[in-house]
Amino acid sequence: MIRNRQARGPGARQIYEVLRAQILAGTYGNDGALPSSRALASELGVARATVTSAYEQLSAEGFVRSRQGARPRVAAVLDRNPPISPMVTGPAPLLLSRYGERLALRPVPLPSAARPALDFRYGDLAASDFPTPIWRRAVLGALAQRQDRLSYGHPAGSPRLRRALQGYLWRARTLRCEAEQIIIVNGSQQGLDLCTRLLLDPGEGAVVEDPCYPMARDIFAAAGGTITPVAADQDGLDTSRLTDVEARLAYVTPSHQFPLGSVLSIARRHRLLAWAEARDAFLIEDDYDSEYRYDINPVPPLYGLGHGQNVLYLGTVSKTLSPTLRIGYLVVPANLAAIFTRAKQIIDRHSPALEQEALATLLESGAYERHIRRIRRRMAERRNALLEGLRYHFGDRLAVEGAKAGLHIIAWFRHIPADREEELIRKAGQVALGLHPLSLLYAAGSAMRPDRAGLVMGYGGLDVRQIRRGVELLANCAAEIESGS
Amino acid sequence: MIRNRQARGPGARQIYEVLRAQILAGTYGNDGALPSSRALASELGVARATVTSAYEQLSAEGFVRSRQGARPRVAAVLDRNPPISPMVTGPAPLLLSRYGERLALRPVPLPSAARPALDFRYGDLAASDFPTPIWRRAVLGALAQRQDRLSYGHPAGSPRLRRALQGYLWRARTLRCEAEQIIIVNGSQQGLDLCTRLLLDPGEGAVVEDPCYPMARDIFAAAGGTITPVAADQDGLDTSRLTDVEARLAYVTPSHQFPLGSVLSIARRHRLLAWAEARDAFLIEDDYDSEYRYDINPVPPLYGLGHGQNVLYLGTVSKTLSPTLRIGYLVVPANLAAIFTRAKQIIDRHSPALEQEALATLLESGAYERHIRRIRRRMAERRNALLEGLRYHFGDRLAVEGAKAGLHIIAWFRHIPADREEELIRKAGQVALGLHPLSLLYAAGSAMRPDRAGLVMGYGGLDVRQIRRGVELLANCAAEIESGS
Repeated sequence: MIRNRQARGPGARQIYEVLRAQILAGTYGNDGALPSSRALASELGVARATVTSAYEQLSAEGFVRSRQGARPRVAAVLDRNPPISPMVTGPAPLLLSRYGERLALRPVPLPSAARPALDFRYGDLAASDFPTPIWRRAVLGALAQRQDRLSYGHPAGSPRLRRALQGYLWRARTLRCEAEQIIIVNGSQQGLDLCTRLLLDPGEGAVVEDPCYPMARDIFAAAGGTITPVAADQDGLDTSRLTDVEARLAYVTPSHQFPLGSVLSIARRHRLLAWAEARDAFLIEDDYDSEYRYDINPVPPLYGLGHGQNVLYLGTVSKTLSPTLRIGYLVVPANLAAIFTRAKQIIDRHSPALEQEALATLLESGAYERHIRRIRRRMAERRNALLEGLRYHFGDRLAVEGAKAGLHIIAWFRHIPADREEELIRKAGQVALGLHPLSLLYAAGSAMRPDRAGLVMGYGGLDVRQIRRGVELLANCAAEIESGS
Repeated sequence: MIRNRQARGPGARQIYEVLRAQILAGTYGNDGALPSSRALASELGVARATVTSAYEQLSAEGFVRSRQGARPRVAAVLDRNPPISPMVTGPAPLLLSRYGERLALRPVPLPSAARPALDFRYGDLAASDFPTPIWRRAVLGALAQRQDRLSYGHPAGSPRLRRALQGYLWRARTLRCEAEQIIIVNGSQQGLDLCTRLLLDPGEGAVVEDPCYPMARDIFAAAGGTITPVAADQDGLDTSRLTDVEARLAYVTPSHQFPLGSVLSIARRHRLLAWAEARDAFLIEDDYDSEYRYDINPVPPLYGLGHGQNVLYLGTVSKTLSPTLRIGYLVVPANLAAIFTRAKQIIDRHSPALEQEALATLLESGAYERHIRRIRRRMAERRNALLEGLRYHFGDRLAVEGAKAGLHIIAWFRHIPADREEELIRKAGQVALGLHPLSLLYAAGSAMRPDRAGLVMGYGGLDVRQIRRGVELLANCAAEIESGS
């Protein structure tokens, strides 16, 4: 029976039911055109009459408008973009690998479709910051490149992009490396995942800063690593606390500690390197937003300071172009280049070619650095608007940290205790203001967790007017809590 | 000392040396423009005079042409595209994770820059097959989409693309699923890697077909799986040999066995599903080239035949659009959708947005299916040219298998023993003809390994004229060996 049904293809009733369900679910996109009966019959391997009969039924029921010679269209005015529910629920996943089980223990909320109108979320950029005309030109240029064959590219990335990055890294970061040491990855997240897979075994130690970027902690935890959070302060990671820590690797943000914004002092840099060298441990240096600095000189990366064996450098265009491009780069010690290249190949062959060529064009022509100078000025204006707004509305009721560089600041509320942080964020949500607590970035049970409410305030995605309005709303929410306490 | 040097930025001598090395290495891309002294000084945090002095030295030595007011340019006529050496050599990688160590045991050659003029490599497409105008329009449309913020997308992929694929999978493959079960991945390679990470632990069993796609074997081996190759024949995987095999998952190509080209019979499909269900094992169904079929009816996927719990379906646009786009899709059982989404998020956040939106546009408008029908006809012509050429030059000295579908055939040389296969391939290489032995796709020490020479001949990347010429060259090489034996 099943054999026959499989061999014969679906009947008219089945086709009708599926199309109806798809129409109701909004499958047919923005223009509402359904496949022609000829095309559908050929794809499904059925007689055209079978499809026509299904369409006739749908038409009779008012789901579809059919017109001689034209493709049928969705007739009913439907909500064409019903949300995809954030997670399919169902029986708890069974039979996962240990990696899968560990990952299941650390769920994170998915990006929600309904976002607050004013959101101080870190990591976003304003769409107007994207250099659309030059990117469009670069993409069109890449599409027009003459090729004979379409075949898999180099797993470590486009040779042209890697050479261009080699020059850029030296100019922008005084980082010297061979193009062969550069691996193009899908954003720094994949770079970090690659490092973890190749360098960390279950049960081995991984040091993270406390507080830190939570998805780094998640990657190490999913890999089965034993995580040691080490306090960060106004000079970055407190290396004096590393003395007795044994670990395979440490994830650090020396140029601009995430989230506190401090710069790792030179004395601590040397201590950190000595710690890693003594243990043959690796330092993963995430240089996530070093393009943005305002009142300070550039801070050269840790990468150049050691003997070239222990530091893996991670960069991204998520903060300069767009997080949706998914382009990052990893600079690895020379003796690890081959195995990282191989790992990238087996994991996903290589990163998409088009964006790589477009980025290479921007780097070669100098357009990338011109763009950075331009948005750096813009970010400085936003930062100043935020700092001025906070000073105006809060005076010394609020302390700011980490404002010298990057795309976010830390705001401490002197008169709001930590246990009312949640209330502040909830109140803000009621006026469509998105706030993000610092406390979530500390390790569970951390002794570093402050007793005051604190926020990570990203300003990269807001314009000056929005920032002013956002601070005003924040001031109202905070005042309510302060007066009530 | 180091402290001062770090704080001060590089001196003129250092800048000179680095720029000189970069110029010699071809870092400055196609147009040869170097950064302006002002820009470079600002990036490096040094006085402009320091950079100017370095440029003067480079100019004096003839490396750079400087002109008042313009950016300096590379002066010497250099080879602008020196090859990136395929692998950095160096001390053997130490201190890798067990994953890294296992991976290091299975190196594969990287794509080489020098490729034979006529290459019957499987997996390539001709550049002229790519629908450049409609893709360009779709990409431009995606770039023009109005957005307020640039922020991370949904980890499982663009909701619009997932809905469009849901419709496509049903139309093209009679596959029914919810959009929530579709995870957009960077090519089917990443889909396979995701499955492996979430479902397979070191020491657990993984079944592969014998012969099979070697990078599947590599993924399972790198994950520490115990690999059981199970023979495939003219009806696909021989399920009678599965009876006593215990495994966590099996990687199968039921619609078109890779590389033999056979279709898994309906009886074997049911046995395979029963085997998986009895063990709570997973079947990873790689539907890598089902768009191409010539003399046979469409074969519905295994996915729809089971109870929806054991089969993960893997699709790709690498064979219909381009392998360089890196877009694939995974359809997972409903109760695994959440964990796969989470894994994709932690591994690389999500796949790049631009290509996803462009592909959604093609699917919604029907352009994707029109494109497939167009290149399917073209592929049929190439296939016929190959079959006719082989018949003309070889007659019954050569047997063809697996020609009813896909983009490759298997060619068996009746009069060339397996131990002279290598010689045939070497001879072909001397006349710039790329041939690919079937023997490499068998498991090490496989009893299935044939005693005749056999080739996997991909024709997707060659036009009819090239195919005819390639067969002629092949006939000459084969005749030399046959007459010498």
